[in-house]
Amino acid sequence: MEEIGFLGLGIMGKAMSMNLLSHGFKVTVWNRTLSRCDELVKHGATVGETPAAVIKKCKYTIAMLSDPAAALSVVFEKDGVLEQIGSGKNYIDMSTVDAETSSKISEAITSKGGYFLEAPVSGSKKPAEDGQLVILAAGEKALYDAALPVFDVLGKKSFFLGQVGNGAKMKLVVNMTMGSMMNAFSEGIVLADKSGLNPQTLLDVLDLGAIANPMFKMKGPFMIQGSYPPAFPLKHQQKDMRLALALGDENSVAMPVAAASNEAFKKARSMGLGDLDFSAVHETVASSKSSS
Amino acid sequence: MEEIGFLGLGIMGKAMSMNLLSHGFKVTVWNRTLSRCDELVKHGATVGETPAAVIKKCKYTIAMLSDPAAALSVVFEKDGVLEQIGSGKNYIDMSTVDAETSSKISEAITSKGGYFLEAPVSGSKKPAEDGQLVILAAGEKALYDAALPVFDVLGKKSFFLGQVGNGAKMKLVVNMTMGSMMNAFSEGIVLADKSGLNPQTLLDVLDLGAIANPMFKMKGPFMIQGSYPPAFPLKHQQKDMRLALALGDENSVAMPVAAASNEAFKKARSMGLGDLDFSAVHETVASSKSSS
Amino acid sequence: MEEIGFLGLGIMGKAMSMNLLSHGFKVTVWNRTLSRCDELVKHGATVGETPAAVIKKCKYTIAMLSDPAAALSVVFEKDGVLEQIGSGKNYIDMSTVDAETSSKISEAITSKGGYFLEAPVSGSKKPAEDGQLVILAAGEKALYDAALPVFDVLGKKSFFLGQVGNGAKMKLVVNMTMGSMMNAFSEGIVLADKSGLNPQTLLDVLDLGAIANPMFKMKGPFMIQGSYPPAFPLKHQQKDMRLALALGDENSVAMPVAAASNEAFKKARSMGLGDLDFSAVHETVASSKSSS
Amino acid sequence: MEEIGFLGLGIMGKAMSMNLLSHGFKVTVWNRTLSRCDELVKHGATVGETPAAVIKKCKYTIAMLSDPAAALSVVFEKDGVLEQIGSGKNYIDMSTVDAETSSKISEAITSKGGYFLEAPVSGSKKPAEDGQLVILAAGEKALYDAALPVFDVLGKKSFFLGQVGNGAKMKLVVNMTMGSMMNAFSEGIVLADKSGLNPQTLLDVLDLGAIANPMFKMKGPFMIQGSYPPAFPLKHQQKDMRLALALGDENSVAMPVAAASNEAFKKARSMGLGDLDFSAVHETVASSKSSS
Repeated sequence: MEEIGFLGLGIMGKAMSMNLLSHGFKVTVWNRTLSRCDELVKHGATVGETPAAVIKKCKYTIAMLSDPAAALSVVFEKDGVLEQIGSGKNYIDMSTVDAETSSKISEAITSKGGYFLEAPVSGSKKPAEDGQLVILAAGEKALYDAALPVFDVLGKKSFFLGQVGNGAKMKLVVNMTMGSMMNAFSEGIVLADKSGLNPQTLLDVLDLGAIANPMFKMKGPFMIQGSYPPAFPLKHQQKDMRLALALGDENSVAMPVAAASNEAFKKARSMGLGDLDFSAVHETVASSKSSS
Repeated sequence: MEEIGFLGLGIMGKAMSMNLLSHGFKVTVWNRTLSRCDELVKHGATVGETPAAVIKKCKYTIAMLSDPAAALSVVFEKDGVLEQIGSGKNYIDMSTVDAETSSKISEAITSKGGYFLEAPVSGSKKPAEDGQLVILAAGEKALYDAALPVFDVLGKKSFFLGQVGNGAKMKLVVNMTMGSMMNAFSEGIVLADKSGLNPQTLLDVLDLGAIANPMFKMKGPFMIQGSYPPAFPLKHQQKDMRLALALGDENSVAMPVAAASNEAFKKARSMGLGDLDFSAVHETVASSKSSS
Repeated sequence: MEEIGFLGLGIMGKAMSMNLLSHGFKVTVWNRTLSRCDELVKHGATVGETPAAVIKKCKYTIAMLSDPAAALSVVFEKDGVLEQIGSGKNYIDMSTVDAETSSKISEAITSKGGYFLEAPVSGSKKPAEDGQLVILAAGEKALYDAALPVFDVLGKKSFFLGQVGNGAKMKLVVNMTMGSMMNAFSEGIVLADKSGLNPQTLLDVLDLGAIANPMFKMKGPFMIQGSYPPAFPLKHQQKDMRLALALGDENSVAMPVAAASNEAFKKARSMGLGDLDFSAVHETVASSKSSS
Repeated sequence: MEEIGFLGLGIMGKAMSMNLLSHGFKVTVWNRTLSRCDELVKHGATVGETPAAVIKKCKYTIAMLSDPAAALSVVFEKDGVLEQIGSGKNYIDMSTVDAETSSKISEAITSKGGYFLEAPVSGSKKPAEDGQLVILAAGEKALYDAALPVFDVLGKKSFFLGQVGNGAKMKLVVNMTMGSMMNAFSEGIVLADKSGLNPQTLLDVLDLGAIANPMFKMKGPFMIQGSYPPAFPLKHQQKDMRLALALGDENSVAMPVAAASNEAFKKARSMGLGDLDFSAVHETVASSKSSS
């Protein structure tokens, strides 16, 4: 698997393809805005002009797109994956998409004779850079086995979860839990602050207790300062909350806390915070500071 | 500080007084149901007949009661703390109460010449047994300094937070955050299960990611089995959510996720789960399993 | 417009086509389960074998289907509307669907030369029977004008709202508001009951005040008795809440109360109440009566 | 009952005492800010210097205070009701308070030999002015009967609800329902607006349907214009939501929609809207208009 295609060079995709390059893989990259490829090229990547061109060139292609619409268009549009996929070609979609989108892509690719694996990840910018993602794979088991050397570079652990759609679903469940936790955390920080407590002391206390976790530790100090450098953009987190709630709807699972959290993320979007880190939901709780 | 009084031998108080005994402190215990003292006596404790008697005997007395009402009655009722408190006597209330209750107790004790420290803890049964609590002290700084040898036995870290009420407030903020997190976790587990994923795999995935934390790791496997052995009773967690929301109300902080979580805990109480561990809120999400 | 086709004979469609018959219109009906046509035939209706057959026969055809999927399949499937629609043919879809579904149907019909009007209604079984619906029309203005004699029979008032999609959107906004109100009402009834008040007195008090409304008056007495004869099925109300929340998502409108209400409807679905009236959401608040 | 004392001349109390004057009752008024009495004096009222003075002078005294704290202080503080209450004296508290406050006042008054009736009202400024309140009385039945001529002037209907506390509870249930409805309405208006619909058309549609009610009709047009002249101040509505939720807490009733609504009112308070009409909660949904 020395020659790998890589479609999509956003925050995540760039970090991941860099890791592949630095571990000796030959990588052919493509991005809708081609200039995003430049830095990769400096580190040894080749550029493919279109998704189809990348598929044609590489036996294995990984995609890391920002949302279901992007994941679909890369496959189905003109010059897309479908035009070159076929027998002997392998496609691993690591984007976070809903199960339905994943199934649609899976069917299209397998009906042309290609192999498909969905492999969304848990972890954002930093773990992507450090090769410490958690990979949630589902679909073609043989392709999963073949991809393990790649997954070993990109992540610290990978799971094979069964049929196509299960990777997407697991990802949504994890991100939904994380999104609600972020809201819980934000409310705690603001309540401490407005009640006359030192929010930094709250962080210290939390870090010593049963709910200490890397996310609080990493993002808390920034949140207190009102700083939200985008590791996982809020609009993508809100998309995942929405998709997770839709999954709950299908399965008749009422999730009032996730629903409240989703509205907070929507509020944040309406405040123009969608491109900041999802921890910016903190502003929806704190935003009335000045006006109270 | 070798001689210490200890009022209240519930789950927490018992574990804490045991620790004091095993570290060589002389402890005089009292509990409303006196038979709860028996086991402590076997390990060397002396029994005080009333809170007043304990105060009379000991220069330093610690209280660990279940709720604000109990904390107040131990102080103000007949044979209560107030009858013997006075110059040279020190009272450390480690119960989780609201700031108003704490202030009321503080005023009563200091007006009689006694010294008061509130010192609620973060951590439940297991940390209490292991001497790994986090102690959130506020009030008389000199008493805090004097109590450090005791706090070193009971906890892994203590904070001095300033004026009386701040310990109570910090505790509420921590428990509110924890309560919302527990709801986020429960919704995640149920969504995984109903969507055809293995909930145990969800636990494995969560434990590798940015939101991995001891509470998920410790309680998750029990929750999946529908087992909720009470470490921190749900009715007490709900009380803390209620008090935290009231604190937010005072300070004009809207906290929609905590509010939704509080309603879930109330729902759990209405289902008769108040005496189980607070992780039993999982049942409010999962309970329709059989009827869907 | 004496000859009218009518597709879909559910609770609503049956009542509406009966009204048309009793006002002297010639009506050709079709329903997926054809036996549902029998009663209409007794009152003078003709049966069309397929949607296509109805379109072929009638210059004007009205559809009243249960959900977007049904509305789409009647148009696009074999023997569907599209096979016979064309110049001089008019199609009025009165189903409650999302704007996207309505647009898809509109485009298909107008591209074949037909005229399209969406005209979802506000009001359920009783207003449908009494010809007291409120009709929210959008699309082809000329068709709206031509349809006024029909709308005068079916409803007490009709609005022309502009471009296709606006009728669907208005309907969702109304139903979302209604769904949240039903939850507010249910919570009030249960709180009264559990607090030792007579719920019937609550109904009397409400009916005298600023929030008195026909829905409370009509459904309240049934709800108190735990009786929910389906006028507007809960699963359809929940679908509308979901679609309204999705519309809010598109437009960055956070709606925490609608979101909480939607989760209550989902909970009701998970309790097996989806086919009862949407007032059965009352059971999600009251259901712990026996176990408290 | 020609001579009546009246304590508290806020929006409500002023309108009510004016009605009593215009119907021929002799009224002795008191207000904490005595200058508020001036206009009443112009219409024939006498001024009492203190609550105690009013009680001393009048056999029947009505109180209409803004919140539980005010209701308590008028009774218990220096120069308060208790100093002159006794055998043959009657006290009717029409303030909206929690049941606990009402019980405390009741016990104090009856223990001195006075008669007590709680009689909170449903309806705000306009109904108060028009003598169209709904009166929710509980306590001393004989006093209720004696007060009927007064209630006939102040309200269109009165209920006797049994033991002290039930009037307060009924009031809370009604206001909680109303508060959630106001949120449902606000969300509907904003969703319509942001989705490209005319909010005024939404009002017209709502007014024709099953959820048409005087509150929507009266407040809707003002809300669309962002105008919130205070009939029922938002901070008082939020207080009632809080008390109703506390009542639910006591009785283990989970009310997720009321809880979400309460947080919206708290958000509004934090935005500095507490003194406007409670319909100003609309701003919490709409407020991001400019920044989206």
